[in-house]
Amino acid sequence: MVDTAQTSDQRLIKGALARASIARHAADVASVEGLTGLSIGRLATDLGLSKSGVATLFGTKENLQVAAVQSAREVFIEHVVRPSLKEPGGLPRLRALIDRWFDFVSAPVFPGGCFRVATVSEFDSRPGPVRDAIAADQRDLRELLTREIRRAKDQGAAEGRDAAALAFEIEALMSAVNTALQMGESEAAPIARGIIDGLIA
Amino acid sequence: MVDTAQTSDQRLIKGALARASIARHAADVASVEGLTGLSIGRLATDLGLSKSGVATLFGTKENLQVAAVQSAREVFIEHVVRPSLKEPGGLPRLRALIDRWFDFVSAPVFPGGCFRVATVSEFDSRPGPVRDAIAADQRDLRELLTREIRRAKDQGAAEGRDAAALAFEIEALMSAVNTALQMGESEAAPIARGIIDGLIA
Repeated sequence: MVDTAQTSDQRLIKGALARASIARHAADVASVEGLTGLSIGRLATDLGLSKSGVATLFGTKENLQVAAVQSAREVFIEHVVRPSLKEPGGLPRLRALIDRWFDFVSAPVFPGGCFRVATVSEFDSRPGPVRDAIAADQRDLRELLTREIRRAKDQGAAEGRDAAALAFEIEALMSAVNTALQMGESEAAPIARGIIDGLIA
Repeated sequence: MVDTAQTSDQRLIKGALARASIARHAADVASVEGLTGLSIGRLATDLGLSKSGVATLFGTKENLQVAAVQSAREVFIEHVVRPSLKEPGGLPRLRALIDRWFDFVSAPVFPGGCFRVATVSEFDSRPGPVRDAIAADQRDLRELLTREIRRAKDQGAAEGRDAAALAFEIEALMSAVNTALQMGESEAAPIARGIIDGLIA
């Protein structure tokens, strides 16, 4: 009994790890070719796995797409959000978020640039679980930005500006700089940086 | 001979009209499902045409994608650019452009919202003729905006702001409002409108 339970646990852990690494690769692929371009067969080939094994872990293409969205969200949290939470709330945290975000789209962490920008445009007109997952992620980011802008305003920054409008504007500029960098327009980064620095001064 | 030449001309005209109407439908489909989602077979089915007929007109999927980009560009020119060219250059033309652009993404003219926003994110990491066609279109729009902003500045608007940076910012905000409206966030339109009016005041 004990042995069987251990084997079963190990199998679960192995399955979860496999699922996470497949989802992470799916996010990389989708950042370049879109979530529409994902297929269970293609991922299996890329990763040297059996198609039936990948199919067992995800079931449907839609589940795979949602898993890619969640994996990409974790990557963004790890690279951009978590490090900036170490800074004091308000202006220092907002500046850290923006610094990290520029690094994230400039490096870029995903081969196709920001996963959120790539996929929100792809799914904004296609209701369903994938769009819902993207929308929830974007809402969380907007709320985080708005909260830190409110705190920054209490500290005297961005005087006379509405916090929600400023969050919308920063997100718009970050999306545009990501796209511009992917299009080879490297001059967009200092332009966007200058505008955002002016906005939160 | 005359009859044959006439028949040949008619065939050419018919072919060109068919090509234009297929490309226009392709742009509608791509605005929702992306250019990746296009296929010659699917368009033939949608339009009640033979697959071989559509294949003869476009040859490859890539040619079809480029034709969709060019068709969408003409739709944007017709709805947004051409009417605003009737206004005097500078601030009046810039305001007309922005008014029309808001109408274009709010209506929306394409079922999936702005074709440019949908496809630039899709192809920004995929070099080739499709990305080149999208980039050329975006460059033209940015140049038009920058030129009219420069004129508006000569007329005393947007004092102390760099014209190219302002064009980048307006385009970023228009892309973001398009995406937000497609995501059902109707409050984004007045927010973006307020920001842009402030920018060009």
